Amino acid sequence: MSTESQFESAKKKAIELFEKGGIVVTQQEKQNLTVFDFGLDDLENVGLQLLVYINTPRVCAKEMVLFPHQTCVEHKHPTIGDVAGKEETFRCRWGKVYLYVPGEPTDNIKARIPESIKDHLTVFHEIVLDPGQQYTLQPDTLHWFQAGPEGAVISEFSTTNTDDIDVFTDPRIKR
Amino acid sequence: MSTESQFESAKKKAIELFEKGGIVVTQQEKQNLTVFDFGLDDLENVGLQLLVYINTPRVCAKEMVLFPHQTCVEHKHPTIGDVAGKEETFRCRWGKVYLYVPGEPTDNIKARIPESIKDHLTVFHEIVLDPGQQYTLQPDTLHWFQAGPEGAVISEFSTTNTDDIDVFTDPRIKR
Repeated sequence: MSTESQFESAKKKAIELFEKGGIVVTQQEKQNLTVFDFGLDDLENVGLQLLVYINTPRVCAKEMVLFPHQTCVEHKHPTIGDVAGKEETFRCRWGKVYLYVPGEPTDNIKARIPESIKDHLTVFHEIVLDPGQQYTLQPDTLHWFQAGPEGAVISEFSTTNTDDIDVFTDPRIKR
Repeated sequence: MSTESQFESAKKKAIELFEKGGIVVTQQEKQNLTVFDFGLDDLENVGLQLLVYINTPRVCAKEMVLFPHQTCVEHKHPTIGDVAGKEETFRCRWGKVYLYVPGEPTDNIKARIPESIKDHLTVFHEIVLDPGQQYTLQPDTLHWFQAGPEGAVISEFSTTNTDDIDVFTDPRIKR
């Protein structure tokens, strides 16, 4: 696990990036901002800063921050029985996002693959999102993403959050 | 109906308010921005500028713009049979929003009631949203809203759009 002070520092940096990206959040929301290192102890390269605006049984909306070249690990949101998996749209608000999904692998991808997860990435079809651009992921779609050189602020619009059933490619991952 | 040039001018002003509010939209999205006057021919006071980011059978997200003291008319999103009505969260991104919902009527509400719809507003419990503040409306909840003196940019996170079954208090309204 990353140390308490690493998490605190990530929280502060995330709030700075919200400000750079013109995203206004309340004092209470700043407190509620969550930093994930996915239990991999490599927060600088692998992690995610998350502020959930709303999460009901029907709808979820959140704002995410990634630091320069920080990666959110590969995962998918499974359909279980009759319950369709989470459907999500990522919209880049600021910075740049490199998103990887199933399909023809892109030559010379722009993301820098972190050493700590290099054996646990399997999809390499690249989608680059600049501010104002977005991409919708259907349920059951493996994906991972990384910020460009300045970091990224990303809005996510989705069905209800399903963190507890998310499937990670890397068996070490705890969330 | 408002004239073509009134709609075009509203579209341009809405794009300016997106820029003021730090909301980045693509050229294509600027084209897709829709201006509603609800058929009331009073766009300056009663109307809504809308950009739908995503609308699937499960999730909808949009950005709305209101000009100074412009009002979105009173309406609700009905539950029909087993199908729950639209659930929506309004998040103020820029400016100020006065939102009215059922409940104890607020004394001296901040909104200026437009002459053209004054007989068709029935809920007066006031919620004021500053940037970063949000409010979630359950299905079947009457609501109307107005921007403050500088206008407003509002993100809406919701279940699928149900414009075709929305119920308006004012029987004249066509959408």
